[in-house]
Amino acid sequence: MTNIDAKTTVCALFGHPVGHSLSPAIHNAAFNHLDLPMVYVAHDVEPGQVGKALDGVRAMGYRGLSVTIPHKVEAMQSVDEVDPTAAGIGCINTVVNEGGHLKGYNSDGLGALNALRDAGADPEGKKVVVLGSGGAARAIAVTLACEAKPNELVIMGVKPDELEQLVHDASQRGNTSVRGCPLNDDSLKQEIVAADVVMHCSPIGMHPNEDASLVPVELLREGLVVFDAVYNPRQTRLLKETIAAGGIAIEGIEMFLGQAYVQFELWTGQKAPRDVMRQVVEANL
Amino acid sequence: MTNIDAKTTVCALFGHPVGHSLSPAIHNAAFNHLDLPMVYVAHDVEPGQVGKALDGVRAMGYRGLSVTIPHKVEAMQSVDEVDPTAAGIGCINTVVNEGGHLKGYNSDGLGALNALRDAGADPEGKKVVVLGSGGAARAIAVTLACEAKPNELVIMGVKPDELEQLVHDASQRGNTSVRGCPLNDDSLKQEIVAADVVMHCSPIGMHPNEDASLVPVELLREGLVVFDAVYNPRQTRLLKETIAAGGIAIEGIEMFLGQAYVQFELWTGQKAPRDVMRQVVEANL
Repeated sequence: MTNIDAKTTVCALFGHPVGHSLSPAIHNAAFNHLDLPMVYVAHDVEPGQVGKALDGVRAMGYRGLSVTIPHKVEAMQSVDEVDPTAAGIGCINTVVNEGGHLKGYNSDGLGALNALRDAGADPEGKKVVVLGSGGAARAIAVTLACEAKPNELVIMGVKPDELEQLVHDASQRGNTSVRGCPLNDDSLKQEIVAADVVMHCSPIGMHPNEDASLVPVELLREGLVVFDAVYNPRQTRLLKETIAAGGIAIEGIEMFLGQAYVQFELWTGQKAPRDVMRQVVEANL
Repeated sequence: MTNIDAKTTVCALFGHPVGHSLSPAIHNAAFNHLDLPMVYVAHDVEPGQVGKALDGVRAMGYRGLSVTIPHKVEAMQSVDEVDPTAAGIGCINTVVNEGGHLKGYNSDGLGALNALRDAGADPEGKKVVVLGSGGAARAIAVTLACEAKPNELVIMGVKPDELEQLVHDASQRGNTSVRGCPLNDDSLKQEIVAADVVMHCSPIGMHPNEDASLVPVELLREGLVVFDAVYNPRQTRLLKETIAAGGIAIEGIEMFLGQAYVQFELWTGQKAPRDVMRQVVEANL
């Protein structure tokens, strides 16, 4: 660890709890690798106290924040400006402090988008199917609609109100054709057959239910790009079957890493040292 | 530096400016030496923003603070409780956070008192003369009156109102006989002849005026204890002449180190690793 002195700039995580977060280890390794005079700490902030904590961030001159559960909405309400994509998502996970002016961003969806691009699967001009309508699906669908140019974005879900809201929010902000679709066996088959990219954002397949997969194996095929937001296990049944079928599988940790790269670059203005950050995550999985 | 992770507890300095403070290096070296999961950073807080910054400290769960110029009074007004000695001094330089309840202390005078004791010069039962009535004199005189048991405490100054106020505040809080006295050649001679301990708290002798000394050399004698709050140069003319006369000279950096030891012990409940902290200061002088 680089020595911390009176000129060291501070970044932090706000969450509740925070004790098991890898973010301090990831960002400190990156600061250290580039010899930046910065340090990243974690603050366990009680719900309802985020506004006061953000006043403190302004007064104490923090450079930036990561914001995690349960503070992503409360933090958005107390910053001075919200990036349009984050506003569409409805919550922030990143804050940048420009001389007391706090701007909120959401780098979760960008993390997933960058993971697609890094895998040679830029969604531009493609048909993308998002499975689910919860938090991860919101971040990904709105970000793809705002910041990528898919030819068509289909969001499939089982909660009609949540799905409708997400379709509305993604349509409103972006320039992409967005369509909602109730998720069932028939619709899944119909949409995935024509899809180039599938973004799985439901919890199905997560530990301890590693045997489960939302997508029937017969719908997987050569060249199909499948991202799975589930990262425990790292390689879900869905991803194993994607690879077996000749598709391109992208693990959930790529989204986690990707959002951290974006945060690092927003705070420092420098290219994130991806290998260093990845090593920290892989060493802790 | 110990690795900083999501369980690391944070302490900080509040000041304006803070860029040249040694406190982060001192406290981080001490945390590291004892392998404590703690880190110390510096925050440059604008005047008027200390209350908001302290709200942030509560919300973010900082363990403690050092407070330096110009925030020692403003911080006292925004904590939840003030130690009686600090209240007598009229400002704080230390905050301890007990679950959101902030208590303010002033460890400057204790730093000087501990330096006396470490030098084998406990003021108990002695006649102590304090030269000056400014900030350092206030911290030392009130602390000696409250926390030590000198037989007599004489405060000598050239600003009648400031002197009178300090005599009042030191008398009110402590159990010691405190007397004020205008500082001039005659009174200086009269008081120092009968003194056991002299606490020099004026700026006379500070760089670039190393040739100056408030105390005529003929008043110095064998066994007289002289502390000099001036620490640049480390050994002032007053201290050199004290040693030459066979007296006991205590340098200003002992007060600085002493206040840091007290802070460390308030935050951690552990004995400060004095040698480690002293090495950092000596390496930077």
